[in-house]
Amino acid sequence: MASNSFGTLLTVTTFGESHGPAIGCVVDGCPPGLELAPEEFRHDLERRATGRSRHTSQRREADEIEILSGVYQGRTTGTPIALLIRNTDARSKDYGNIAEQFRPGHADYSYWQKYGHRDPRGGGRSSARETTMRVAAGVIAKKWLAQRFGVVVRGYVSQIGTIVPAGFDLDAVETNPFFWPHAAQLDELEQYMDALRKSGDSVGARVEVIADGVPPGWGEPIYGKLDGELAAALMSINAVKGVEIGDGFASVASKGTEHRDELLPDGFASNHAGGILGGISTGQRLRCSAAFKPTSSLRLPGRSLDIRGNEIEVVTTGRHDPCVGIRAAPICEAMVALVLMDQALRHRAQCGDVGEVTPRVPAQAGQGDV
Amino acid sequence: MASNSFGTLLTVTTFGESHGPAIGCVVDGCPPGLELAPEEFRHDLERRATGRSRHTSQRREADEIEILSGVYQGRTTGTPIALLIRNTDARSKDYGNIAEQFRPGHADYSYWQKYGHRDPRGGGRSSARETTMRVAAGVIAKKWLAQRFGVVVRGYVSQIGTIVPAGFDLDAVETNPFFWPHAAQLDELEQYMDALRKSGDSVGARVEVIADGVPPGWGEPIYGKLDGELAAALMSINAVKGVEIGDGFASVASKGTEHRDELLPDGFASNHAGGILGGISTGQRLRCSAAFKPTSSLRLPGRSLDIRGNEIEVVTTGRHDPCVGIRAAPICEAMVALVLMDQALRHRAQCGDVGEVTPRVPAQAGQGDV
Amino acid sequence: MASNSFGTLLTVTTFGESHGPAIGCVVDGCPPGLELAPEEFRHDLERRATGRSRHTSQRREADEIEILSGVYQGRTTGTPIALLIRNTDARSKDYGNIAEQFRPGHADYSYWQKYGHRDPRGGGRSSARETTMRVAAGVIAKKWLAQRFGVVVRGYVSQIGTIVPAGFDLDAVETNPFFWPHAAQLDELEQYMDALRKSGDSVGARVEVIADGVPPGWGEPIYGKLDGELAAALMSINAVKGVEIGDGFASVASKGTEHRDELLPDGFASNHAGGILGGISTGQRLRCSAAFKPTSSLRLPGRSLDIRGNEIEVVTTGRHDPCVGIRAAPICEAMVALVLMDQALRHRAQCGDVGEVTPRVPAQAGQGDV
Amino acid sequence: MASNSFGTLLTVTTFGESHGPAIGCVVDGCPPGLELAPEEFRHDLERRATGRSRHTSQRREADEIEILSGVYQGRTTGTPIALLIRNTDARSKDYGNIAEQFRPGHADYSYWQKYGHRDPRGGGRSSARETTMRVAAGVIAKKWLAQRFGVVVRGYVSQIGTIVPAGFDLDAVETNPFFWPHAAQLDELEQYMDALRKSGDSVGARVEVIADGVPPGWGEPIYGKLDGELAAALMSINAVKGVEIGDGFASVASKGTEHRDELLPDGFASNHAGGILGGISTGQRLRCSAAFKPTSSLRLPGRSLDIRGNEIEVVTTGRHDPCVGIRAAPICEAMVALVLMDQALRHRAQCGDVGEVTPRVPAQAGQGDV
Repeated sequence: MASNSFGTLLTVTTFGESHGPAIGCVVDGCPPGLELAPEEFRHDLERRATGRSRHTSQRREADEIEILSGVYQGRTTGTPIALLIRNTDARSKDYGNIAEQFRPGHADYSYWQKYGHRDPRGGGRSSARETTMRVAAGVIAKKWLAQRFGVVVRGYVSQIGTIVPAGFDLDAVETNPFFWPHAAQLDELEQYMDALRKSGDSVGARVEVIADGVPPGWGEPIYGKLDGELAAALMSINAVKGVEIGDGFASVASKGTEHRDELLPDGFASNHAGGILGGISTGQRLRCSAAFKPTSSLRLPGRSLDIRGNEIEVVTTGRHDPCVGIRAAPICEAMVALVLMDQALRHRAQCGDVGEVTPRVPAQAGQGDV
Repeated sequence: MASNSFGTLLTVTTFGESHGPAIGCVVDGCPPGLELAPEEFRHDLERRATGRSRHTSQRREADEIEILSGVYQGRTTGTPIALLIRNTDARSKDYGNIAEQFRPGHADYSYWQKYGHRDPRGGGRSSARETTMRVAAGVIAKKWLAQRFGVVVRGYVSQIGTIVPAGFDLDAVETNPFFWPHAAQLDELEQYMDALRKSGDSVGARVEVIADGVPPGWGEPIYGKLDGELAAALMSINAVKGVEIGDGFASVASKGTEHRDELLPDGFASNHAGGILGGISTGQRLRCSAAFKPTSSLRLPGRSLDIRGNEIEVVTTGRHDPCVGIRAAPICEAMVALVLMDQALRHRAQCGDVGEVTPRVPAQAGQGDV
Repeated sequence: MASNSFGTLLTVTTFGESHGPAIGCVVDGCPPGLELAPEEFRHDLERRATGRSRHTSQRREADEIEILSGVYQGRTTGTPIALLIRNTDARSKDYGNIAEQFRPGHADYSYWQKYGHRDPRGGGRSSARETTMRVAAGVIAKKWLAQRFGVVVRGYVSQIGTIVPAGFDLDAVETNPFFWPHAAQLDELEQYMDALRKSGDSVGARVEVIADGVPPGWGEPIYGKLDGELAAALMSINAVKGVEIGDGFASVASKGTEHRDELLPDGFASNHAGGILGGISTGQRLRCSAAFKPTSSLRLPGRSLDIRGNEIEVVTTGRHDPCVGIRAAPICEAMVALVLMDQALRHRAQCGDVGEVTPRVPAQAGQGDV
Repeated sequence: MASNSFGTLLTVTTFGESHGPAIGCVVDGCPPGLELAPEEFRHDLERRATGRSRHTSQRREADEIEILSGVYQGRTTGTPIALLIRNTDARSKDYGNIAEQFRPGHADYSYWQKYGHRDPRGGGRSSARETTMRVAAGVIAKKWLAQRFGVVVRGYVSQIGTIVPAGFDLDAVETNPFFWPHAAQLDELEQYMDALRKSGDSVGARVEVIADGVPPGWGEPIYGKLDGELAAALMSINAVKGVEIGDGFASVASKGTEHRDELLPDGFASNHAGGILGGISTGQRLRCSAAFKPTSSLRLPGRSLDIRGNEIEVVTTGRHDPCVGIRAAPICEAMVALVLMDQALRHRAQCGDVGEVTPRVPAQAGQGDV
């Protein structure tokens, strides 16, 4: 399997460097007949885009998607869908001085150790610029899941630095630049982020994704488990250092009598498992989350080495988010959608279309979902 | 990719149900020439085995490995190594009453929804019995990594319920049945587990794995990242609900100036990243951990449904660990070793043998490793 | 992808050496609910087995299949099906003298060059003994294809040395030890083979496989083409040196007006393409064939080298078929069935169950099928 | 595995339709450090290009490759190399009348049966236009193989219709538009092709590829065999109906004493096997060939149906080659090079760099190579 490809039946292959001529992806395995137009990508690309508020990087990218293949007369044909975005706002001069330096916390050192040669412009291939194409591919997956199964996938931020939501309202998420589910905290967040930016430092964030409407039965045993693939998908995003399904690490300190989700005639009594048992969906709300480390590119100097082993001081003057996790909400959402669509296709390959093989006990989403 | 296979160049395919005739695996891609004898599997299988102390399930399994192929005159030939263990202590009668029941917290419900047909004996394919073969395959990976690169992979338990280590001594880990890195706490743990077993309830655990000696440069960009594959590997283990690399979720509340690991002439100043940057190893100690949920099989009754939707009460009388996470330490260790060996092979495919392509700045393991 | 695995959604992983303890396979991805019993494998294993007539090797193998997993209460569960056969009649002494020799026409030399170490007993992994498990896996595929789609896959021999069928009657194939479709030639074949065996020499054979009832639409564009995968499947069989689809190499000298299969209201007017256009099935009879080279193991001496480069003379005294292609008919049949089942699953993953997406023009099997 | 991707470690993913905005590919897994410039693709693209002589289609394509990623400062970085060609000369009007027709011998019918929706412009995805990107990817493979191992891969035409070479001189191949290895026959071929074009009909062709300098040991056992992958690679090319390795179908009528290639102190005595034994290279010249069917697009009318089942007469007025096999020589060459590079990488993954593990008996290329 190619390292820059993701998925088994719905395969996404991305390419491109942060400051190269273009970034793009090839989405292979999408069923035929799905309506798809270039403008459908715009909304999610803007959600992810830099420059959306003063709390994210000021790099402005047009990010106009061109559909190069796989769509005819506005519908997918079943052949590979290639998407392309030209890099237009690549100010390489911001990055020129780091060609021979290892920025602390970045992939500079490990790429150089691996390849002995790297594209230093804006982080090259290791830049989060790559995630733009994940979001684009995710648009296709989210649309197909919604049309075919009524599945809705939504991401939001559930921690910024030390701040956690004091309430939970999904409708609030898309109304603020923090993807925050509690509108009453926006002033607090604004002040926190302003202070942070002023200090020159950065913080991490936690992003949660929930998926509603996932039928029971998606996911494959053992190494193709739904949760295993979600973990791989989320951990593959830049700056992610942890992944949780359902209660995640809180499960460690919980008791079995509390954690096991009992089944009642009207559905599950709780959802500590996050909608997955034995790697297969239960029909409950799917819940997972990812931990993003704080941005490593800081204007506060850091000690490092250059490629000859000399001590240096690294100061990053380019445009960078003080909290990269914030705009990762749509990225996580896209990855979850891509995993779900892939698993949906795999499920129908082995078990036929949903409803054909599987008898059902009514399974409503249980309580305790967030 | 088959759902019961794992890895790209070193591929492990497992098969078998908990109470079927046998479990086994096929390890494909191991280089030729590695010495391998059946008795080499015994140590790790015993580390994982049930019945090791009164704190784990009393099921006693001989777990004698038979090497069916791939080894000639005591050395691997480069062809697939098949390993087989006959299930000898399968008391199916313990499980007979659950054939039409969904045990809360188990895969019974999701498997039945997926397949409309399942092997209920001891959890069938979803049983942790499958992990025996992961440990067996891991023996091969650990040996190859040690011989070829001097890499040492070690797992230990870093939390049981609410108890965390009060000290850290790797040498203590293998001297106690809890894989606990602080010998002074053994009495406390014994009492905690005795009380737990008496109560009929269970708790979760956290397992950490460290790998020393990993050269810089292992791991592949984007979707073949070392941390992405570790996440998939660990999350695929039964009962795992969370995975962390390095500082994991603690990264969220940390500052960029604290988290980014600075490089000094004598090595990294710290290791918050867990030895991975941009998905590629840095040459530091690799650190990752997994959260295990509490055992769901309890003698304390739980509410559930049968396959016809009738309300039932489930009581599990079989042999089960009150904390499944404890003996998961060797399982996690095995999965990390398998990922590392796979990445080592992939690295030398693309970049040649280590040392050939990659120039090196001295990179010692930094501080703050645990 | 592991080198000893085959298929995308229906994956077969084989293991075992000719004279090791056992051979086996793991079939992953079979849909749940298929009835399957150990005795169902017997018929095809006997068709392939040595010792069936005096024209094939006199090695007698019980070849009793044990189902180790994936079947519960006589039906597949959707989890991996492991099949095992113990090697009982392994007379290693026959082969002992070749441990340091390279038999001309065998894999001895190339394996040794690759691995620097090999299992010489009976050819080890490179022995056609491995194909036993292909036939076993093919039994599952043939049954599923027949039950689910009415697809019937049949192999026969269409050339032995210089002899070709003087007539064609599919019903004759299973009534003679040559899988020959024209009963009137059996005497001629008997005499030909007797003379050949007496001479100590060997000849090649051509095996054809036809599949009836394949719906239109199976196969994937470009690199997952049905014909591409058939070619890989057949060429992977020991001793195969050529593969044809439809008219094969005869197409080179044909005219476009002759070769293109015209469509008429009652179906295709001809079937030069072998039932595949653009890599996708047309609904016609599928036709393909494989060329088997003559057996290389001969009692007539051949010049060769030993591993130290010394000139030697190789004489093979073990049990060998003077025409290995004859009993390859069930092997080819199995490989075609495995490819078709894999493609059937892939098709329904992307396009839904047959009949759902695809409108149909009536497409009967055309003329000129053989 | 995505259907539009090819290879295990060197993976090529192609996209694009004949008359869509662009075609392109992503080459993943190329080692870092290889020098690569856009102009290096020109030579092979022109060899493949239409419009090269009056004997091929008169469609003129600039086919200027743009390197979108994976190359920095003129050298590969180890990250995915994306190549793009804009379709500039797409006269869709030529093809408009076939949107609802099934052209005999084309993928129109099978695609429509599979997807229920297709891009009819110039054959869409099923057009041989896709092979442009194979040739481009092959340029990278050929260069790497030559630089790293001295491997030289060359394709030529060894049959057009009923004409076969009367002599063999590899140096002649690149001096004529037929890739023909015997210059004395050029007049004959010119006249044959002129008559053919005048008649409105078409013929098939046979293309052979030889690779010199392939070290022994490349190829993997069983399902990853070098010949199996060559078969898949060649059969995946448009219009190919047969594949041979070494003597191919001629092996059927040969005797074992003739066919088995004896080993002598100065190398193999012959090369009937085509340089592959047991799926692994022997160090001899690699020989394989592909059969191309005659062009199906003819101005001579053919009977067919439209998508509503009405009888129609199809006449193709667009630009088409009377013998598509001729310019397939560079395509076959590219596919063989891609397979070889992939196998070279897989070999060094498992067995280390060539020369490290494998002891060698001198193995010169034997006689009888063509």
